[in-house]
Amino acid sequence: MRIHLVNPNTTRSMTDKIAAAARAVAAPGTDIVAATSSMGPASIEGYYDDALALPGLLAAIAEAEAGGVAGGVDAHVIACFDDTGLDAARALARAPVVGIGEAGFHLASLIAHRFAVVTTLSRSVAVIEANLQRYGLDRRCSGVRASDVAVLELEDPASGARERISAEIGRAIAQDRAEAIVLGCAGMADLARALAREHGVPVIDGVAGAVTLAEALVRVGLATSKAGPYAPPRAKAYAGRLADFAPPGN
Amino acid sequence: MRIHLVNPNTTRSMTDKIAAAARAVAAPGTDIVAATSSMGPASIEGYYDDALALPGLLAAIAEAEAGGVAGGVDAHVIACFDDTGLDAARALARAPVVGIGEAGFHLASLIAHRFAVVTTLSRSVAVIEANLQRYGLDRRCSGVRASDVAVLELEDPASGARERISAEIGRAIAQDRAEAIVLGCAGMADLARALAREHGVPVIDGVAGAVTLAEALVRVGLATSKAGPYAPPRAKAYAGRLADFAPPGN
Amino acid sequence: MRIHLVNPNTTRSMTDKIAAAARAVAAPGTDIVAATSSMGPASIEGYYDDALALPGLLAAIAEAEAGGVAGGVDAHVIACFDDTGLDAARALARAPVVGIGEAGFHLASLIAHRFAVVTTLSRSVAVIEANLQRYGLDRRCSGVRASDVAVLELEDPASGARERISAEIGRAIAQDRAEAIVLGCAGMADLARALAREHGVPVIDGVAGAVTLAEALVRVGLATSKAGPYAPPRAKAYAGRLADFAPPGN
Amino acid sequence: MRIHLVNPNTTRSMTDKIAAAARAVAAPGTDIVAATSSMGPASIEGYYDDALALPGLLAAIAEAEAGGVAGGVDAHVIACFDDTGLDAARALARAPVVGIGEAGFHLASLIAHRFAVVTTLSRSVAVIEANLQRYGLDRRCSGVRASDVAVLELEDPASGARERISAEIGRAIAQDRAEAIVLGCAGMADLARALAREHGVPVIDGVAGAVTLAEALVRVGLATSKAGPYAPPRAKAYAGRLADFAPPGN
Amino acid sequence: MRIHLVNPNTTRSMTDKIAAAARAVAAPGTDIVAATSSMGPASIEGYYDDALALPGLLAAIAEAEAGGVAGGVDAHVIACFDDTGLDAARALARAPVVGIGEAGFHLASLIAHRFAVVTTLSRSVAVIEANLQRYGLDRRCSGVRASDVAVLELEDPASGARERISAEIGRAIAQDRAEAIVLGCAGMADLARALAREHGVPVIDGVAGAVTLAEALVRVGLATSKAGPYAPPRAKAYAGRLADFAPPGN
Amino acid sequence: MRIHLVNPNTTRSMTDKIAAAARAVAAPGTDIVAATSSMGPASIEGYYDDALALPGLLAAIAEAEAGGVAGGVDAHVIACFDDTGLDAARALARAPVVGIGEAGFHLASLIAHRFAVVTTLSRSVAVIEANLQRYGLDRRCSGVRASDVAVLELEDPASGARERISAEIGRAIAQDRAEAIVLGCAGMADLARALAREHGVPVIDGVAGAVTLAEALVRVGLATSKAGPYAPPRAKAYAGRLADFAPPGN
Repeated sequence: MRIHLVNPNTTRSMTDKIAAAARAVAAPGTDIVAATSSMGPASIEGYYDDALALPGLLAAIAEAEAGGVAGGVDAHVIACFDDTGLDAARALARAPVVGIGEAGFHLASLIAHRFAVVTTLSRSVAVIEANLQRYGLDRRCSGVRASDVAVLELEDPASGARERISAEIGRAIAQDRAEAIVLGCAGMADLARALAREHGVPVIDGVAGAVTLAEALVRVGLATSKAGPYAPPRAKAYAGRLADFAPPGN
Repeated sequence: MRIHLVNPNTTRSMTDKIAAAARAVAAPGTDIVAATSSMGPASIEGYYDDALALPGLLAAIAEAEAGGVAGGVDAHVIACFDDTGLDAARALARAPVVGIGEAGFHLASLIAHRFAVVTTLSRSVAVIEANLQRYGLDRRCSGVRASDVAVLELEDPASGARERISAEIGRAIAQDRAEAIVLGCAGMADLARALAREHGVPVIDGVAGAVTLAEALVRVGLATSKAGPYAPPRAKAYAGRLADFAPPGN
Repeated sequence: MRIHLVNPNTTRSMTDKIAAAARAVAAPGTDIVAATSSMGPASIEGYYDDALALPGLLAAIAEAEAGGVAGGVDAHVIACFDDTGLDAARALARAPVVGIGEAGFHLASLIAHRFAVVTTLSRSVAVIEANLQRYGLDRRCSGVRASDVAVLELEDPASGARERISAEIGRAIAQDRAEAIVLGCAGMADLARALAREHGVPVIDGVAGAVTLAEALVRVGLATSKAGPYAPPRAKAYAGRLADFAPPGN
Repeated sequence: MRIHLVNPNTTRSMTDKIAAAARAVAAPGTDIVAATSSMGPASIEGYYDDALALPGLLAAIAEAEAGGVAGGVDAHVIACFDDTGLDAARALARAPVVGIGEAGFHLASLIAHRFAVVTTLSRSVAVIEANLQRYGLDRRCSGVRASDVAVLELEDPASGARERISAEIGRAIAQDRAEAIVLGCAGMADLARALAREHGVPVIDGVAGAVTLAEALVRVGLATSKAGPYAPPRAKAYAGRLADFAPPGN
Repeated sequence: MRIHLVNPNTTRSMTDKIAAAARAVAAPGTDIVAATSSMGPASIEGYYDDALALPGLLAAIAEAEAGGVAGGVDAHVIACFDDTGLDAARALARAPVVGIGEAGFHLASLIAHRFAVVTTLSRSVAVIEANLQRYGLDRRCSGVRASDVAVLELEDPASGARERISAEIGRAIAQDRAEAIVLGCAGMADLARALAREHGVPVIDGVAGAVTLAEALVRVGLATSKAGPYAPPRAKAYAGRLADFAPPGN
Repeated sequence: MRIHLVNPNTTRSMTDKIAAAARAVAAPGTDIVAATSSMGPASIEGYYDDALALPGLLAAIAEAEAGGVAGGVDAHVIACFDDTGLDAARALARAPVVGIGEAGFHLASLIAHRFAVVTTLSRSVAVIEANLQRYGLDRRCSGVRASDVAVLELEDPASGARERISAEIGRAIAQDRAEAIVLGCAGMADLARALAREHGVPVIDGVAGAVTLAEALVRVGLATSKAGPYAPPRAKAYAGRLADFAPPGN
């Protein structure tokens, strides 16, 4: 099985870290093919970055499906906790698509009655809360907490990021009755295990979660339903700098 | 007062129709400046088109705020019923931003206890339902109905589009107890008045609604709060084809 | 355009203040006609006052529609933040009716992701929360806070009311992540601008909001749908002291 | 125990029917004291009638509490299915107050997983739906259905009202999976038993329900909490025709 | 009227206390028949105990309906605040069944706008919150608070249980705006009156509540609807140690 | 990896079918150990059967964890679509536990915007709806439909069960806009693939889903949080026929 893991920001070191987290949990026989977006923001922090990350993400998915990845891919994972472009990717792709945010929420729901999300900057809280509400899983979430860590600080061991994240986890447990923690950024993938030991509750990394959920879908033989809003894009003209994104006739 | 009306698709004839609808309701002294997106889809029908319409929309807003419109603008209106890019535009712009979808829902809430939305293709229903839920106004909506009209058919009088829309309005009133109708596409702006007469209930065009709501905000002196997720985008590098979208330092 | 602004309590000085706030934002050509209720409570603080304010409010609306206001009126504004009698007024009036509570909530939704309401006495909190829930906009509200100011204290500069309201606004921002503030009493209409400057977030006065929303409805040509629960009252006998409120045959 | 049953409309024959239904279920030792409102609408059909029924209702409650009923009263029942004035009555009264609408919903929740409401005119549907939502019990309701029967037709055996109500009950069972029926008007109190036999599901009359719930509250020793929005009305001046409704100092 | 009160745990001293609370509020002519479960946990604290309390509870109900109680029973009360087995009991029994948890919530809804629940151990909070949500009454609840009292400590006057419960009630009033308190364990039935006096708000014991609600149902002539999920169990084979629980043919 | 699959009814032929479905999707290296409950109902159809299935289910889980399965187990799957006993099992077990109902809902949420559930008897609809609501995934479900097939009919090819299920799937797609189907009974596990081909939308069998989700949890290293309501049962006496279920001290 081959899983296409797309980092929708353009920072290659982050892709490497995410790919390592993915490979650490993949089943024997699962091949992780990691891609970095070729255009857009270096990190995704808020609505504007989210919007401009979409073309690069969709280009990566289209390329993989068009044979850019030899042998084809069986599933796509979008490695941004905002689940950036998840709906558009599902409409575009033949293979199933899993976002690391939704993956974290779904797995947390299977092992805890109430989970907290600990993310980076406060401006991301609203994005994540809106996703939880759309998925329905806000009912299971005790709160989304920001640790005031910028995404790229996670790449810098001297930034104190880990300590701030750990402190916020402590508050989620003590103040919100959180029983498990979902780490709210792909760049935190390497921290889950140590934070779980430190706090004595399950700590969930969405990257690992999305890879195993993608494996589950492929093994069961499920792909995105095309009978609703995920129908393939209609053929039409696209103008200007994005003309090459025009969907072909189906 | 100057209102910047952005058509986020790249079809100029549609911009002209929308601008006419806007000018028909604007208060004396309000100037409507209409812009057509310079890149992306010719019409917005579903998640994929929505995603690829964002760069063109945001470019138009940035340009207007940067002085592309002489004398500056007091407010922006996004003339796609999906409220495409509304959150990103609010983060980017200094001036307030109103989407025609939300405008239709808010005005309908002031004149009816339950309203219906009648839109184009069935694939847009999920997008609109998700918006209604986020805004909270799903509680006021008796249902979103598709009329199976493609967006660009609205530009063609011979397409029978008007008849199909009218038939769907009839069903919304008879079957769902709808007391008012919100037309679910910017391209329907010219139909509202006649359909209201035909069906005997208020029929709301979001373009007219958004223009008058934008006027209301400007007159009261309100602009988007920058204290939350609509804070200005953080300065950072953008790569590749979208490098020029990188936000400057604030 | 002529907007009929009804103060449903019987304190004339409050009507004057409200009318001034209304005139300050009205578009050129909009005429504000202000009326004070002729019967009932001097201020509206809680369910009992709300109930007894209704006859006076409805009498004022009926009189204006029956020609009491020369030249007729194009819209009504109910200037009590509880939106007292809004549903009954919509059933009674031909012209559209806007409450200042709903106006504040709708405008706040257009400029902030989460807003707070700061009102007078704690007994009004439940009334406002119930309205938010009915409108659906509770999802956008970070909380309704009472400042322990009695309505008529707002008429007395020596009461310290402004300071208590400002302190509560500070708490809403700091503790509830409020991005904008809706002032929860018509009597606070003169405070919005200064409090916005002081706290650095938008502060919304419902009176100004309702006037501009009423202008929007009139300009777009929308009035209350009579196809549902806002159908005109059925003709029937009324007894006793309220006999003259009996609706005529339609 | 003495229960004060107030008919908030001014039709005495309806009071008699309601009082009979109340006495039929009251426990031995419970005395039903029935009152007819002295002012306002002859029947309550929609928002306008609801609003104008409030003064008469509150006057009846104040009179009973002030000793108009010799020996005092232990509880009040408001015999209109809209629960007209329930909040104001709770603020005014020392004794507990039960509405027949809420009583029907609460009892139905104890014997069925999903219940339907069958009421009179379609304009009352929105009122009842809003109450269900406020109480939280909309989650248990399969739908509110109108039988197109005017309230006063219920007093006329030749009106065919009973047949139309029965037909609507049949539809609620067949189409909405309703397991029990709540009759949505005080004037239907005499029909419950026969309709239950006819349809083979429980049919609940709110008058009987409210009387037994009031008995339950009195027997357990519970009265309305005055610690929140049901605090006694604040002393203040009332003007004009309603001046005598001014609350005394507490 | 005869009410069958089942204590679904196997601690007889607790049954005696509960029966006394029931008899204290029962109407003249109501006979309380109390039963203690014959199998399962000595106290119900969390999901596992809840699950294993079911056979004993259902056996008691079946026995009473089969004539184990001479003269038959008119209603059943389940005296565990988790409403353990309420759905299964409703399916099994011909007579109506009331749980003390739901009884407390319903009565609280009639006398307060917002009530708090104060229960024993924190592990019970999730069970009670889920019940509130299913019933719809979570909208009326300001919070479920644990007092860290084990159920059987309530049987021991030296345990300090009463003081911890009272402290938690104080916090619910001060911090959550609770206007009334529902005691969240059958074993607290004897504390309600004194705690109400101490805190000046209504304090509701679910046992008293359930008895009076059961009386209400019987007096009105209502029993569980068999038209939905409470249809009698289908006849089928049961195996092993529970073979004698097999439902007979209906 | 070893997954313990428990059929909580006592029909061994159904266990065999379920185990086959589980083995068909399990990853290489995953061992499926299937167990049939030793006590209780032959099939689970409604609340009463659900309640009496719990002891047998919990006994099977306790036995597997106590070493009844040589080498221990890494996860448990409860193979009843009602997710019977899921909460109690999570409190009891050290290893993670997945129900086939929740598994179906979670996987469906990853490949469709709206899914339908098609189950056996109408009495199970309420159970499944309540689960969906608790999990939050009711927002994603277009409806739960009963096919009027008894559970054990699924074991009989001559029963016409498959045709009735297929017809109900057709209605869910045509009438409810369902984009994917979740089969609502463990006994339907062998039908998914053929029904998907027939209807052209994804059809999800919860057994396959639960096995792959359990694999995901184990691979990521997640087990049930013991920090909340899933804390191990407290040590206490159990009486009578269930005395041996008493939890040991932790």
